[in-house]
Amino acid sequence: MDDITRLTASELLTLYRNRQIAPSDVVAALLARIGARDPVVRAWQHIDGDHALAQAAALIPGPDSPLYGVPIGFKDIVDTADLPTTYGSPIYASHRPVKDAVCVSLSRAAGGIVLGKTVTTEFAGRNPGKTAHPLDPARTPGGSSSGSAAAVADGQVFLAIGSQTAGSTIRPAAYCGVYALKPSHGAISFSGMKHLSPRLDAIGLMGRSIADLALFRAALLGVSPVPYVPVSGPLCVGLCRTPYWSRASADVQAAIEQAATRLAASGIEIRQVTYPDAFGDAEELCWEVINFEAARELAWEYAQREHSLSPWARAAIENGRGISLDRHANNLQRLATAEQAFDTLFATVDVLIAPAAGEEAPMGLADTGSPIFNLAFQIAGLPAVSLPFRSGSAGLPIGLQLIGSRYRDRQLLDIAATIEQRLVS
Amino acid sequence: MDDITRLTASELLTLYRNRQIAPSDVVAALLARIGARDPVVRAWQHIDGDHALAQAAALIPGPDSPLYGVPIGFKDIVDTADLPTTYGSPIYASHRPVKDAVCVSLSRAAGGIVLGKTVTTEFAGRNPGKTAHPLDPARTPGGSSSGSAAAVADGQVFLAIGSQTAGSTIRPAAYCGVYALKPSHGAISFSGMKHLSPRLDAIGLMGRSIADLALFRAALLGVSPVPYVPVSGPLCVGLCRTPYWSRASADVQAAIEQAATRLAASGIEIRQVTYPDAFGDAEELCWEVINFEAARELAWEYAQREHSLSPWARAAIENGRGISLDRHANNLQRLATAEQAFDTLFATVDVLIAPAAGEEAPMGLADTGSPIFNLAFQIAGLPAVSLPFRSGSAGLPIGLQLIGSRYRDRQLLDIAATIEQRLVS
Repeated sequence: MDDITRLTASELLTLYRNRQIAPSDVVAALLARIGARDPVVRAWQHIDGDHALAQAAALIPGPDSPLYGVPIGFKDIVDTADLPTTYGSPIYASHRPVKDAVCVSLSRAAGGIVLGKTVTTEFAGRNPGKTAHPLDPARTPGGSSSGSAAAVADGQVFLAIGSQTAGSTIRPAAYCGVYALKPSHGAISFSGMKHLSPRLDAIGLMGRSIADLALFRAALLGVSPVPYVPVSGPLCVGLCRTPYWSRASADVQAAIEQAATRLAASGIEIRQVTYPDAFGDAEELCWEVINFEAARELAWEYAQREHSLSPWARAAIENGRGISLDRHANNLQRLATAEQAFDTLFATVDVLIAPAAGEEAPMGLADTGSPIFNLAFQIAGLPAVSLPFRSGSAGLPIGLQLIGSRYRDRQLLDIAATIEQRLVS
Repeated sequence: MDDITRLTASELLTLYRNRQIAPSDVVAALLARIGARDPVVRAWQHIDGDHALAQAAALIPGPDSPLYGVPIGFKDIVDTADLPTTYGSPIYASHRPVKDAVCVSLSRAAGGIVLGKTVTTEFAGRNPGKTAHPLDPARTPGGSSSGSAAAVADGQVFLAIGSQTAGSTIRPAAYCGVYALKPSHGAISFSGMKHLSPRLDAIGLMGRSIADLALFRAALLGVSPVPYVPVSGPLCVGLCRTPYWSRASADVQAAIEQAATRLAASGIEIRQVTYPDAFGDAEELCWEVINFEAARELAWEYAQREHSLSPWARAAIENGRGISLDRHANNLQRLATAEQAFDTLFATVDVLIAPAAGEEAPMGLADTGSPIFNLAFQIAGLPAVSLPFRSGSAGLPIGLQLIGSRYRDRQLLDIAATIEQRLVS
């Protein structure tokens, strides 16, 4: 057998069905991998090997267990009753919730194994955690779902939960070369996860193939997985360079253009798409909404534990406290305008393609990189996928971002599978 | 001094500022009132008098304490670190969260006193709690925010937090004769409250005047309160009978028509408003979304504690599990259509008026009444106010529902104050 830590979750499930391996062996293999790699990658905030092995031993297989025996990492903003939950903040160093988040309950119900808690930036904001990029530890893995992306990329876990308020799932997935789905806003429960900005926060799913994302999504919606269906009819793809194209590296620009060229050569219609801008500047809007809401979500931490907040968190809260209610009301209306503008755009294209991040993973661990290529799609509540596409001149992954029509997450995965097939063939 | 338990929060604050009374005296008066009335009204799930008195004694007054010394009740779906939180379910009989919900933190930061936890229906759904109507204990106080409405109405607390997924704040407020604000969807944080249907759940505010609601709202947004400004220019009010007009009692119909007549006589333009229906049947849509989401939110409870769920909860979850992902995606799109349809409608009117509930509080405690007159506005995410208006033939309160333009909650309160003035003058 090949290195089982490199399998997709779907391949792992096939081995289980054929009784070629047992869940405890898989957990043991991951724990060995983590033991060897954690000093470098530092993807885990908390891991309890005995607890994971106990879950593996106690599993009851069944046809209704779509994640039977699949070890999963949960970003450490996700409440877990069996493991500490720090929210990436020293304020919560000894925090132990009494209930599992909904995504944890649904993962367990689907047969998944809670392997551990992955490193998050402080409150899923900008202040980085300890995780390094698995392919080059001098570089950031991206954030805020830093540990989830790094662990999946490095063969330390099969699936992982992240979250995205601006670009916190799609960007680290692109940097680390893993597959990710940020669902439509509100399409998969965020309950039991620490909010930074409820209006924008969404759960994020990471895995090693589109099929894995479809599987994981089904489990988190409590339904039986349905194999994805490559699209057979004509497809129209909108190439969306966004107003920030000049902020993408030459490598990223070339990769996206090349993807469009290859798709066109395969018979897919490519349309140059102008970015709707009725909602104004996405970057300004996104940060104002986040800061306004973070000031309320973190009011207790600011009032009672200010000195344990990073300068980043303090600055965000103070900025948010300075935004007037009238301005915030206007910003909420701008978000509604963005939703409608993109809903209209999707009458003319099936999917948008854009950079998942503007560059390969940047050097240094002090900053997790820029979400600029995610913001507009995020504020419009659209589902997005990061597809590992090729490498740049630093030899690191570049991700192709696919953005779907709101609430058509399943269609987006089907299109992503089709596009991936066309790109590699 | 008159009975202090009957003051508005705003009046109470004036007494504090003039040093005519101390917070401990107020808490003591409320505890006495509760002691006398609780055997009949049963509004409280948990109350800890010593804890409330300790908070009163420890208060540090200051100009930044807009709720200084104001006792508040919190619906028992709101997490409190100092008090048990049952979510209205025997499953959580001994549940004690480790963190306060955001609304609790912000209330405390504003100087408010957590008086106790008010009775909720099971998970803020349909299965009633033990609370009776304060004016007629043979009748329901409405739900799901049953205890909050009853306690505010009965002089047991000044302000209370509720929640609304279908009509759970506006309806009990109307039945009990208290003032309520259901903010625009997402305008005030729901974090740390138990979700039933995240796409529709909103926090609810209850008090004894429009000024109290404005004060409470400011505290929950972490800003200093600004006195409301009665509208001086011309106002256009849309009289919205809704497609369910025939389900309102003759008394309610007459009350709403009379309100329109009086407002017209005061110089306000009244326009008959046709209900937008591009989104289809609001009742069917609302329950499908709630049931689909409740099946996910309560997945753990259903899988692990099914026999401790009420037949209502089980039926809702089972119905929700039967709704396909495609149908749910379509329902989410219908919600977006409803938002847009009402946004368009508000280009022609400043506010809508409609019944807050279809009847006076119904007889019996087995059912909390129908939210039919709240559903369409709720699915469109609109802010709504219930204004106690007059009594019906049973001698019980009737509420006038005012519905505002999305995200213009402040404007809605200003208009509500103006309308109330015109109705009583």
